Amino acid sequence: MNIDFYDLLPEISKAISRNYLESELLMGKTDKPLPTRSVIIEIINDLRQLMFPGYFSSENIDSAGASYYTGHMLAVIHHKLKKQIALALAYNDDRGITATNNEILSKSEEICCNFFKELPNVQKMLLLDAQAGYDGDPAADSREQVIFSYPGLYAIFVYRIAHELYKMKVPFIPRIMTEHAHSKTGIDINSGATIGKYFFMDHGTGIVIGETTIIGDYVKLYQGVTLGALSTRGGQHLAGIKRHPTIGDRVTIYSNATVLGGETVIGADSVIGGGAFITSSIPEKTRVSVTPPELSIKNDTNNKTSELSATNYIYEI
Amino acid sequence: MNIDFYDLLPEISKAISRNYLESELLMGKTDKPLPTRSVIIEIINDLRQLMFPGYFSSENIDSAGASYYTGHMLAVIHHKLKKQIALALAYNDDRGITATNNEILSKSEEICCNFFKELPNVQKMLLLDAQAGYDGDPAADSREQVIFSYPGLYAIFVYRIAHELYKMKVPFIPRIMTEHAHSKTGIDINSGATIGKYFFMDHGTGIVIGETTIIGDYVKLYQGVTLGALSTRGGQHLAGIKRHPTIGDRVTIYSNATVLGGETVIGADSVIGGGAFITSSIPEKTRVSVTPPELSIKNDTNNKTSELSATNYIYEI
Amino acid sequence: MNIDFYDLLPEISKAISRNYLESELLMGKTDKPLPTRSVIIEIINDLRQLMFPGYFSSENIDSAGASYYTGHMLAVIHHKLKKQIALALAYNDDRGITATNNEILSKSEEICCNFFKELPNVQKMLLLDAQAGYDGDPAADSREQVIFSYPGLYAIFVYRIAHELYKMKVPFIPRIMTEHAHSKTGIDINSGATIGKYFFMDHGTGIVIGETTIIGDYVKLYQGVTLGALSTRGGQHLAGIKRHPTIGDRVTIYSNATVLGGETVIGADSVIGGGAFITSSIPEKTRVSVTPPELSIKNDTNNKTSELSATNYIYEI
Repeated sequence: MNIDFYDLLPEISKAISRNYLESELLMGKTDKPLPTRSVIIEIINDLRQLMFPGYFSSENIDSAGASYYTGHMLAVIHHKLKKQIALALAYNDDRGITATNNEILSKSEEICCNFFKELPNVQKMLLLDAQAGYDGDPAADSREQVIFSYPGLYAIFVYRIAHELYKMKVPFIPRIMTEHAHSKTGIDINSGATIGKYFFMDHGTGIVIGETTIIGDYVKLYQGVTLGALSTRGGQHLAGIKRHPTIGDRVTIYSNATVLGGETVIGADSVIGGGAFITSSIPEKTRVSVTPPELSIKNDTNNKTSELSATNYIYEI
Repeated sequence: MNIDFYDLLPEISKAISRNYLESELLMGKTDKPLPTRSVIIEIINDLRQLMFPGYFSSENIDSAGASYYTGHMLAVIHHKLKKQIALALAYNDDRGITATNNEILSKSEEICCNFFKELPNVQKMLLLDAQAGYDGDPAADSREQVIFSYPGLYAIFVYRIAHELYKMKVPFIPRIMTEHAHSKTGIDINSGATIGKYFFMDHGTGIVIGETTIIGDYVKLYQGVTLGALSTRGGQHLAGIKRHPTIGDRVTIYSNATVLGGETVIGADSVIGGGAFITSSIPEKTRVSVTPPELSIKNDTNNKTSELSATNYIYEI
Repeated sequence: MNIDFYDLLPEISKAISRNYLESELLMGKTDKPLPTRSVIIEIINDLRQLMFPGYFSSENIDSAGASYYTGHMLAVIHHKLKKQIALALAYNDDRGITATNNEILSKSEEICCNFFKELPNVQKMLLLDAQAGYDGDPAADSREQVIFSYPGLYAIFVYRIAHELYKMKVPFIPRIMTEHAHSKTGIDINSGATIGKYFFMDHGTGIVIGETTIIGDYVKLYQGVTLGALSTRGGQHLAGIKRHPTIGDRVTIYSNATVLGGETVIGADSVIGGGAFITSSIPEKTRVSVTPPELSIKNDTNNKTSELSATNYIYEI
């Protein structure tokens, strides 16, 4: 009783096709292709080469050739981005208009232009972010190393790009960008968040920054920090409402701390200790440290159980 | 005293070769190649194109061409998968039988057939997972966005595929698949876990779901949740024993909560607050919130230290 | 009022070029190319094929051909590595010397030779790490599976390679290597850390091991463990100072525990429970378990709120 795949193929093939027809979601809209993820990732890489030509470009640029290089790179990126934005706009257009429609193309060109106009400022912001990474981490040998290797810098780079597109209400593309960075770094910044200058995330893995978070200037976050919503049981009814906290200027939040809620404000110059769990506002210039849960210490040698004074274990920040 | 690499090469080369001979583990079994990781990743990508043709396929499928497309894709995947399963089965066969042996090929064909028969159901499950992601996240603009970008959906997609192969006792391949998803998403689901329908993981980074976990329907997990074992000091002696918890229907577990132990059951309709640490069962319809560790608040301005009432800090889920 | 990208291009192009000139950091040093990240990743992959030929090499090696294979692979890796090290050394050389300078090339050759001489020992260490992964995880089917799929083994492999280069003070390359592993596994091991033999990290996502950490033999870490600094407010002034803890032989640290501070020593044979937060030393042979924060339990059926006895919730390791 040997089974042969080809005997079963017609039936399985039909069952999957039937699923396509029963839920149009599986195929997307057949006459409207979605944006192409691989091209969007190319655009991210192109933009990184444009912003930091000494690091990620195979070409050797000198100051004389710089404006040719930037002009060429901008044209290349524009060509790809305009098409992807048009695909995204057309997919979400209820009138059935496609990506080659003049109205869509003209809207896409407008968005591209506004996006590119912001790039020189984004580049300046990223320089400050790189400086923050160097200043804030004793393990950083140089600012070059921060640009070259630090996942926190990669995540903030992609966020700053995606945020410009988010502000212009481009569908799909900002999220594809930030999820690409999330996949590479373990840092999940929603492109809707607002983040000030000189921002540094050390180590980074597990950081979550929700869509309506507002972060001031000179803020530093460590791995595992969540800036999240108190509850999302409301689901789609909560869309658009401020659900995530506001973090003041010069705040530092140590590893695995959690700050939740749209009305929660961490005042400027405050420091939040590792592992803190905060759901209401903290005034400015405040140090919040956690009295960690009691530790039960059992020594196998003398078989004596004791409890260490919690004060020994305060995280002195 | 210039050192030249080529003077040292023979000695180093010999030392590494000697390591190969002293531990056969380094070379695997020389006459039995292991499955090819890159082909297994191709199979994952092919399956994603088959299940969600509107998103990850470069081809534009319409309803008329759908059954040709599915038939072609299934044949392509079958060709690759049958060979990889044969390699995996042969490697673990004590009789020294290789991947081209008829018995192995016939067993591999049987597994393939049973696997492909499950695919239409897996596809329906994934549609419900996508719906859960949209319903549960106010930041989701559309169900398309969930399919396109959400790491939680990618991880559950790979798990559902790998789980079918795990159930049929295919060696190596299920773990290669889930670790590929782990690498891309930070979500570590063992292919042995049992997970019901309409499952959503938000953000996802740091989630760990152990091999013998059982999860009901309509469950929602947040980033950093561990469903783990109490202790693994028993090592290989614990293999096969239920070491991980059971999660009832409609349970929500918020970020960084930890639930441990094979006899721990979270009853249906319960909600576990962020950061909870649970090692014994919780009845159904129960809300577990954490009284967070006391926070020590020191204000730099008036130099007054106070302790905030813990009740202010309960995570109201 | 149609906007056209090409009308804006000259201005935007000029603004970005001006940023290059205003901050030389963006372009790197124009006459001194930085090391090439993609080549460094190739070197990692080549080294993996050299160390574990049965797993990651497409070629089928038998014992007769082994020394030819190793000789060839070593030559290939040497060719790439020597050039990358020269680029890194030249970039950091204040005298303006470039990567083709004889002095730089000779220093690079010396580093390469010392590096390659260590490889057979590194390979033996990795075999012990693979054994530790198999012995310590009931979900591991075989040692082959650990080598093939476990992110913890990949991270320790890359760390052990990078650490050799770190010890020889190679700039840039060790960090590029460990951040590549961080990106793929969520495990962030600074190449400066010192890690003994038979080391196992289970699941791994979120583990952070700082630059001056010292870890003994037979140590086991779970996901989310931080071995970190108490404070990095000193920034670059702390460079070179021991800021991270020392972990004794045969210590196990369960998930999401945090151990901070350069003077903190976890004594040999101790076990640190999940979620513990430790900032001062723990004697040897000590079990530290956490009395978890009180859980507030509210049952929706009888509307009765109770608090579970914390003792029920001690994580019994």
